[in-house]
Amino acid sequence: MSARKIIIDTDPGQDDAVAILLALGSPELEVLGLTAVAGNVPLPLTSKNALIVCELAKRTDIPVFAGCSAPLTRKLVTAEHVHGKTGLDGPQLPDPIMQLQDRHAVDFIIDTFRSEDTGTVTLCPLGPLTNIATAFQQAPDIVDRVKEIVLMGGAYFEVGNITPAAEFNIYVDPDAAKIVFEAGVPLVVLPLDVTHKALTTRTRVDAFRSMGTEVGRMVAEWTDFFERFDKEKYGSEGAPLHDPCVIAYLLKPELFSGRRVNVEIETTSELTLGMTVADWWGVTDKPANALFIGDVDADGFFTLLTERLQTL
Amino acid sequence: MSARKIIIDTDPGQDDAVAILLALGSPELEVLGLTAVAGNVPLPLTSKNALIVCELAKRTDIPVFAGCSAPLTRKLVTAEHVHGKTGLDGPQLPDPIMQLQDRHAVDFIIDTFRSEDTGTVTLCPLGPLTNIATAFQQAPDIVDRVKEIVLMGGAYFEVGNITPAAEFNIYVDPDAAKIVFEAGVPLVVLPLDVTHKALTTRTRVDAFRSMGTEVGRMVAEWTDFFERFDKEKYGSEGAPLHDPCVIAYLLKPELFSGRRVNVEIETTSELTLGMTVADWWGVTDKPANALFIGDVDADGFFTLLTERLQTL
Amino acid sequence: MSARKIIIDTDPGQDDAVAILLALGSPELEVLGLTAVAGNVPLPLTSKNALIVCELAKRTDIPVFAGCSAPLTRKLVTAEHVHGKTGLDGPQLPDPIMQLQDRHAVDFIIDTFRSEDTGTVTLCPLGPLTNIATAFQQAPDIVDRVKEIVLMGGAYFEVGNITPAAEFNIYVDPDAAKIVFEAGVPLVVLPLDVTHKALTTRTRVDAFRSMGTEVGRMVAEWTDFFERFDKEKYGSEGAPLHDPCVIAYLLKPELFSGRRVNVEIETTSELTLGMTVADWWGVTDKPANALFIGDVDADGFFTLLTERLQTL
Amino acid sequence: MSARKIIIDTDPGQDDAVAILLALGSPELEVLGLTAVAGNVPLPLTSKNALIVCELAKRTDIPVFAGCSAPLTRKLVTAEHVHGKTGLDGPQLPDPIMQLQDRHAVDFIIDTFRSEDTGTVTLCPLGPLTNIATAFQQAPDIVDRVKEIVLMGGAYFEVGNITPAAEFNIYVDPDAAKIVFEAGVPLVVLPLDVTHKALTTRTRVDAFRSMGTEVGRMVAEWTDFFERFDKEKYGSEGAPLHDPCVIAYLLKPELFSGRRVNVEIETTSELTLGMTVADWWGVTDKPANALFIGDVDADGFFTLLTERLQTL
Repeated sequence: MSARKIIIDTDPGQDDAVAILLALGSPELEVLGLTAVAGNVPLPLTSKNALIVCELAKRTDIPVFAGCSAPLTRKLVTAEHVHGKTGLDGPQLPDPIMQLQDRHAVDFIIDTFRSEDTGTVTLCPLGPLTNIATAFQQAPDIVDRVKEIVLMGGAYFEVGNITPAAEFNIYVDPDAAKIVFEAGVPLVVLPLDVTHKALTTRTRVDAFRSMGTEVGRMVAEWTDFFERFDKEKYGSEGAPLHDPCVIAYLLKPELFSGRRVNVEIETTSELTLGMTVADWWGVTDKPANALFIGDVDADGFFTLLTERLQTL
Repeated sequence: MSARKIIIDTDPGQDDAVAILLALGSPELEVLGLTAVAGNVPLPLTSKNALIVCELAKRTDIPVFAGCSAPLTRKLVTAEHVHGKTGLDGPQLPDPIMQLQDRHAVDFIIDTFRSEDTGTVTLCPLGPLTNIATAFQQAPDIVDRVKEIVLMGGAYFEVGNITPAAEFNIYVDPDAAKIVFEAGVPLVVLPLDVTHKALTTRTRVDAFRSMGTEVGRMVAEWTDFFERFDKEKYGSEGAPLHDPCVIAYLLKPELFSGRRVNVEIETTSELTLGMTVADWWGVTDKPANALFIGDVDADGFFTLLTERLQTL
Repeated sequence: MSARKIIIDTDPGQDDAVAILLALGSPELEVLGLTAVAGNVPLPLTSKNALIVCELAKRTDIPVFAGCSAPLTRKLVTAEHVHGKTGLDGPQLPDPIMQLQDRHAVDFIIDTFRSEDTGTVTLCPLGPLTNIATAFQQAPDIVDRVKEIVLMGGAYFEVGNITPAAEFNIYVDPDAAKIVFEAGVPLVVLPLDVTHKALTTRTRVDAFRSMGTEVGRMVAEWTDFFERFDKEKYGSEGAPLHDPCVIAYLLKPELFSGRRVNVEIETTSELTLGMTVADWWGVTDKPANALFIGDVDADGFFTLLTERLQTL
Repeated sequence: MSARKIIIDTDPGQDDAVAILLALGSPELEVLGLTAVAGNVPLPLTSKNALIVCELAKRTDIPVFAGCSAPLTRKLVTAEHVHGKTGLDGPQLPDPIMQLQDRHAVDFIIDTFRSEDTGTVTLCPLGPLTNIATAFQQAPDIVDRVKEIVLMGGAYFEVGNITPAAEFNIYVDPDAAKIVFEAGVPLVVLPLDVTHKALTTRTRVDAFRSMGTEVGRMVAEWTDFFERFDKEKYGSEGAPLHDPCVIAYLLKPELFSGRRVNVEIETTSELTLGMTVADWWGVTDKPANALFIGDVDADGFFTLLTERLQTL
C-alpha cells in the first residue's frame, strides 16, 4: 500500500512540533507540505517554527508555506502564556537555514487539491482553520476533492480552555471553523475531551528523554516547558499532547473512540464564541457532520508516539 | 433555632413533587408558600399539581399561588416527553379539593419579601425563573431582602438536556435566568452535573416503596415513570432526581461540593440559548456570582430523602 | 353611532398629555381607562402625570392604573433630557387629588378584554409596550379580542432619536415590541417619519395659548418646554407632537397616509436594538403585519387638535 | 500637479463600467489598476467585464486583477435581477482580447501600497469590500499607507435596497465592511442617500447617446437596461448611477455635501445585517470615522460625467 498523502496545517507550538515529527517518522504518511497559519504565535514565528521542525527531522525536502497572518474577520489572539514567546520555548533552538516557499499557503492547498486525484489527500489542521476556510471560500471546487479532514480543535464535556465555552483553535477563528464544519467534507474532530486524556506523565516524558537522540531530547524539553501551564491551571499531572492525536488517529484509529454527531460552531454570541456544540446525546434532529472523538487509549498513544519518534 | 423560611417556586413535575415533599417533611424548613410557574407542563397543570402534592402531604395549610403562564418574551416550551401529559404521570391521582390563592404568585413573592425581615427568606426555584425575574423587575427593592436563592438549573460539564448546550429550566426562560443571575443575590446552583449523580437505582426506589405509606408508594411510582426517559436516552441506570437536590442542599449542605465561580446565561444565540456558562477553571477575570455545585454524596442524599419522606 | 372604546397606555410626557386631552375632548371616543407604564420617566411619575391630566380635563371619573415599572428584561432607560425631571416640566402643576386604582394595569387590560365584546376595544399605546406585551404573554386568549392597536413608535426613513437606529418607545422595551408586532392584531404604527411632520410652529402654539382656557395655557407651556430639545438637536422649527397623532388617527384617519408592510423589531444586536425594520419597498416576501404611516396633513392635524382642546 | 493615483476595486456592473470610464476619461486621475471582486455577478464575469471596459476605453495598458470570489465568511449573493446575467446586459459586447494579470488582486493591492509612497494612493471600492478587507487583514502594515478610501456603499435615510435595512455592497460582505470601516483610514462614503439623487433622466441619457461615440452609445444602452429595475421597483424617473459618484467625488468634491459622523456596520443580526448605522444627528458619543455624503448637485454631476465620457 502506498503512503497516505497529507497536508499538515499548523501553528507550532510545542505540541504541533511533536505532531509533525510523528508524521515525519511514519512511513504510512506522505507529507506533501506544511502550511503555517497564525495561531499560538504570530505567522512569522509559526512559519519559522515549521522550518525548525523539518530541520530537526532532517527533512529539508518538505515544502513549507506561510499562510494567513490573521483570522478571517477578527483580531488575532495568541497563546504565548502557554507556548512561550517563540511558540517553541523550552530548548535553545538555532535559526533555520531552510527557506519558506514563495507561494502562499492557500494557493498551495488549492493547487494541490486541483492537481492530485480526487479523494487522495487528507488535511490535518492543528491550529485555527483560517487557511483551510480561505481555500474553500476562494476555490469551492476543491471541497469535494478532499479525502478527509482530521483536526485538533473544540471541546464539549471538557468545555473551553481559552474561554469557559471555547477551545483555542476554534475560538481564534470561529468564522473559519464554521465554514469548514459546514463544508460537507468527512470530518474527524479531536477535541480537548480526548486530548486531556493523553497527558504527559513523568514516565512518558522520560521515555522521550532516554531515546538518546536529539529529537528525543527536544521533545522532552518542549514537553517539560509545555506542561508547566496545565499543571498550574488544572492541577493535572501533565500536559495534554493535543496535536499529535491527529497524526496518531491517522496511523491507528483503533486507539480512539467517538460518535458520529452533529457539531456546530457558535459565531454570533460573544459569551459562547467559538464553542463546538456537539449533539452527543442526539437531542436534535440535525444530521451528523463529524466523528467527534471522546476517548483514547493513552498508553497505546504514547507507545506509538515513542516508537515513531525513535526512528528520526 | 427557628425553621428557615422558604418559598418554593415550582413547575411540578415528578421530581418537583418529591422536592416539595422533602421540604414538607423537614422541620428545619418553614414553607411560606408554593408559587407555580409554567415549565414542565402549562401553568394550569403545574398549579394543580402543586395542590395535589400539598394534599398528599396533608398540608392543605400551605398557600399555593399561580404565577406566570409564559416566559418573559418567548413561547413556552414544555417537557411532556419526560413528565407525561399531566406532569405527574405515573400513579392515578385524584383531583385536588384544595384551592389556589387569589393573589398572583409574583405579588405573593413581592409582598412576602416586603413584609418579612430582610435576609430571612430563601427562594427555591425548581423550574423556569419567570416568576422570580418578574418580581425582581417589577419590585427591585426586594432584591436586597432575599437571603439566598438555591435553584435547580443549568449544566456545564454535563452540558444540556433540552439542546446540546442548555438545561431545560434555564432554556425555557433564559431572559428570566439572566435577570436572576445578574441580580446580585447569593446564589447556589444545582446543575445537571450534580443531579446526574443522584440517580434512582433499584435499591433506592425499593426503599421508597417499602415505606408502607401513600407518600412512599407515590414517590416510587413517580420515579418509575420518570426514569424510563433517562434510561432510554442516556442508557443510565436510573433517573436524576433533580429538584430534591435543592431542598437537600438546604438541609445538609455538607453532602454537596462545588466552586464559587462566575456564571453567565446565554440569551442571544439560538445555538447556545440558555447555556449556563460557568467559569469553572477561572479563565476569565469575571467575579464569582454563584456557588456552582459539582458533586454530591448520592448515598447520603438518598438516605436523607428516604428518612424525611418516611415522616409524612 | 356609539363612541369607540379605547384604552390609552401611556408614559406622560408632555405629548402623551396632549394626546390624552385630545381623546378626552373627543365624543367619538370612550376612554375606558389609562394605564401607566415606565418610559419617559419612571412609573411613579408617569402614573402621577396621568392623574394630573385627568384632573386638568376635569375627568376624575377616568380610572387610572399603574402598570409595569421596568421593561420585560432590560434596565429602564428614561428621557428626562427631553421631558424634564417630572416628565411634564414646563408649567407649575399641583399634586393630583385623584387616586390610582388598586388593580395592576396589566390585570385591568386582561379583565377588560375578557369582559367586553370581542373586537370592540382598541389599544392606544403611547409609550414602551411593556404593559401590552405582558398582558399578551400572560393571557394569550385576549389577543384575538383586540379590535386594533394604534401606537406611536418606531422610525424608518427618519431613523432613530435615542440611537442612530431606534426610536425611544421601541428601544426602551424591544422585547415587548416584538411580542406586540408578532401578535397578529391589526396594527397601525405612527413612527417618527410622520410625527416629525407634525411640528409645533409659533402660529400653532399661539393658537393653543389664545384659547383662553387652562387647558390651552398648559398645552402651550408644555409645548414651549418640549420643543426646546428638538430645536437644539435637529435645528427644526418646532417639536414633533408624537403621541396626539395616535388619537388624531382614530378620529380622522383621512389625515394620514401609509403602506401596509411587514415591520419587524430588532432585538438581538446592540447596535440596531429596537429598530423597526419596515419593508417599505417590498424587497422581502414577508407578509404585511402593520399599516405604517408615512405622511400627515399637518395643518388638518393641528386644526383638529385645537378644536378639540377648545372643548375642554 | 501630477495625477492622483487610484486603484478601482470593482464588480462591474453597468454603473461600475460608467465609473471606470469616467476615471479613464479624467487626466486628474492615474488608474494604477483595476481589481475585480465577486458582487453584482460572480468573479469570472466581473473580471471579464473589467477587461471589456478597458478595451472599450482603448486602455489595454491598465492592469486588471481577479480577486476574491466569495465574501470572507458568507455565501455570495449576486444581483442579476438588476444587472442582467452578464452584469453588463444591454448592448451586445464582444469577448475581450486583453488578459487578466497573473497576480491575485489582494497581492496587487498589498504590493502597491508597500511600493508606492505612503499617503499617495487612494482606494475606490465600487463593490463588496472583500478584496480590501483581505488585504488589510493579511498585511496590516499597509493600512497606514492608504491616502483615502472613497467608496460607494451603504444607506441611511434611504435605508436598504437588498433588504429593508441594507444596501447591496455592504450586505454582500458585512464582515469585510466592518474591517474597512474600523481600519482608521480616512473614509468617504457615497450611500444610496446620495446616489438616489443622481438619477438618469431622459435628457441625461440622450446626452450620452448624442455623443456620437461608441462609449456614448454603450453608456446609453447600459443605462437604458439598468434603469428598468428602479423604475419598476421605486417608481422613480430613472436609475441611480451609484458608482460614478465615487469618481466624481474625487474630481469635484464641491458637487457633494455630507457630514463627518460615526458609521458602524451591523454584522450580527440577520434582520439588519449589513446596515450602515450612521450617527447623523450625533445621538451617540462615538467619534466620526467617515465623511458620509448626503447630497449631490445632480446637474453638475451629469455635466461632469458627460464631458469626460466625451473625451474617450
